[in-house]
Amino acid sequence: MKNNRICLAERPVGLPSAGTWSYQSVPVEPLKEGEILIKQHYISLDPAMRGWIRAGKSYIPPVEIGEVMRAGTVGEVIDVNNNSHFAVGDFVSGAGGVQEYTYTDGRGFYKINPKQAPLTTYLGALGMPGMTAYFGILEVGKIKSGDVVLVSGAAGAVGSLVGQIAKIKGCKVVGIAGGALKCKYVVEELGFDAAIDYKNENLMEGLKTHCPEGIDVYFDNVGGDILDAALLKLRMHSRVVICGAISQYNASAAMKGPSNYLSLLVNRATMQGMVVFDYADRYLEGMAQMGSWLADGSIKTREDVYEGLENFNNTLLRLFSGEKIGKLVLKVNKD
Amino acid sequence: MKNNRICLAERPVGLPSAGTWSYQSVPVEPLKEGEILIKQHYISLDPAMRGWIRAGKSYIPPVEIGEVMRAGTVGEVIDVNNNSHFAVGDFVSGAGGVQEYTYTDGRGFYKINPKQAPLTTYLGALGMPGMTAYFGILEVGKIKSGDVVLVSGAAGAVGSLVGQIAKIKGCKVVGIAGGALKCKYVVEELGFDAAIDYKNENLMEGLKTHCPEGIDVYFDNVGGDILDAALLKLRMHSRVVICGAISQYNASAAMKGPSNYLSLLVNRATMQGMVVFDYADRYLEGMAQMGSWLADGSIKTREDVYEGLENFNNTLLRLFSGEKIGKLVLKVNKD
Repeated sequence: MKNNRICLAERPVGLPSAGTWSYQSVPVEPLKEGEILIKQHYISLDPAMRGWIRAGKSYIPPVEIGEVMRAGTVGEVIDVNNNSHFAVGDFVSGAGGVQEYTYTDGRGFYKINPKQAPLTTYLGALGMPGMTAYFGILEVGKIKSGDVVLVSGAAGAVGSLVGQIAKIKGCKVVGIAGGALKCKYVVEELGFDAAIDYKNENLMEGLKTHCPEGIDVYFDNVGGDILDAALLKLRMHSRVVICGAISQYNASAAMKGPSNYLSLLVNRATMQGMVVFDYADRYLEGMAQMGSWLADGSIKTREDVYEGLENFNNTLLRLFSGEKIGKLVLKVNKD
Repeated sequence: MKNNRICLAERPVGLPSAGTWSYQSVPVEPLKEGEILIKQHYISLDPAMRGWIRAGKSYIPPVEIGEVMRAGTVGEVIDVNNNSHFAVGDFVSGAGGVQEYTYTDGRGFYKINPKQAPLTTYLGALGMPGMTAYFGILEVGKIKSGDVVLVSGAAGAVGSLVGQIAKIKGCKVVGIAGGALKCKYVVEELGFDAAIDYKNENLMEGLKTHCPEGIDVYFDNVGGDILDAALLKLRMHSRVVICGAISQYNASAAMKGPSNYLSLLVNRATMQGMVVFDYADRYLEGMAQMGSWLADGSIKTREDVYEGLENFNNTLLRLFSGEKIGKLVLKVNKD
């Protein structure tokens, strides 16, 4: 039995390319004492991946050259060598990496229930994007009923959930997304109050139209010019949640910082970074609440699933080109 | 009797120049019912002035063309027309403007005690810079004993006080200032643990040497490259207090935003703006504490006093060239 896997071959400058990765097919080794073998079904593709392959200090160590690329996964336990926590047939999620089979002692993996939700949902609303949205908008954004909430990447895995949670909490929610299709999705399917198509509309005009009173919380997934525009619309004591900066991740020159950051001073506003791992001890709370909202239909999700490990790089690039909607997932094996 | 005053003639692009102002000499009018007449002794020169003459929304309305330039002042009441709050001979501070005489109904002015401290101290440690430092480092910076605190503009009116307050509270304090003289002042007279001369030293090397463990609080008065360098040294859950950005105030192109702002994300850090006016209801507390620290010698101050209303613009420019130390003050009349 062979394990098809994708390792980091070189650190890219700018966008990752085929040459960034090495595609390997290696024998599946016998399990060591205490290990389990997981056959992965789905791999999560996330903007954070671009950060993980950059050298240098960040919130977790970078993936080193030659290592299997880090990725969130869902799969099925197909073999167990004396591990009391897992049994053959369990479905589990964790950082299984971009590969068909994962050996692990089980640390960092947790069981999921495929009857409660589709497997892919455990990479979205019931996985890291869901926890990021939940703790980000509630704990860092500190939303309260009546707040005006602006969300970038509004049709994305995190942004789409942020906006829906804010709606549940009684906020007015405006999304920013690229293209008419995504804007329609955000308003008509997800129930945002409005959406601004930054690719085809004037962003500042859109903000004037849809947030004439300014914004109380800006949840930023993109950085760059959109962050700068949002800063100009801050109200007093507003909060900016820095969750990501996808517009800047592939920059080969210096990052663009927010030129309008002194709006924080004028408006006594706060800009705060968040990393979901800090809320690990509350994931159960977050998953229970998200699960309940999914079950009663107050939160809707969409996963955009592509197939085949060999399509990893091309699929990953959809994150940066915007050619996907909702949570981007790679199905390991074609049907 | 004539009132010599300085009004805004045109909004400058870049640094203010002589042509930015109109120098006027107008008759002192009789007081209206309820008014007092103040003969100003000292005028406060502050970086914020550059913002006040910029058009557009900020934390207070801009000075309009033709209006007397806004400035903090200390002076003596020399005439009163039926105002029960003030008497001839009272010394008062408030926003008296860049002029020799101020008429006012007294709102926004408060009595000061020239026996407790020199008049100029009421424009420094016992005035707006003192309140900015006190509430900025304690309430926004949230310092606690053992924190590593970095302060830019360390020899300036606010920065010099921020560092001393942090020392009183048990922090390790590193200052950034321009020139050997200021760095010597900050360490030897004010008791900072170290100072980095950004004009003659490599800033990143200096930060490595003096803050090897990183920083818990960065109190920023300057913005630009220094803010960017400080962001790279943030520790987990650190705080960046945005008090000012003097390096950027005269920019005629777009402001330089902090390119390294994603350090906020990596380190779950907070960047928060502050405006001293928000603490107006606590000025008494702040003045009492600052007064006590001044009295027992745990806080030292220096005022850099220049003379003559006609030297207003040239003296103001010292704020931006850095040719001053401590609190910059203009004495209205030469001795």
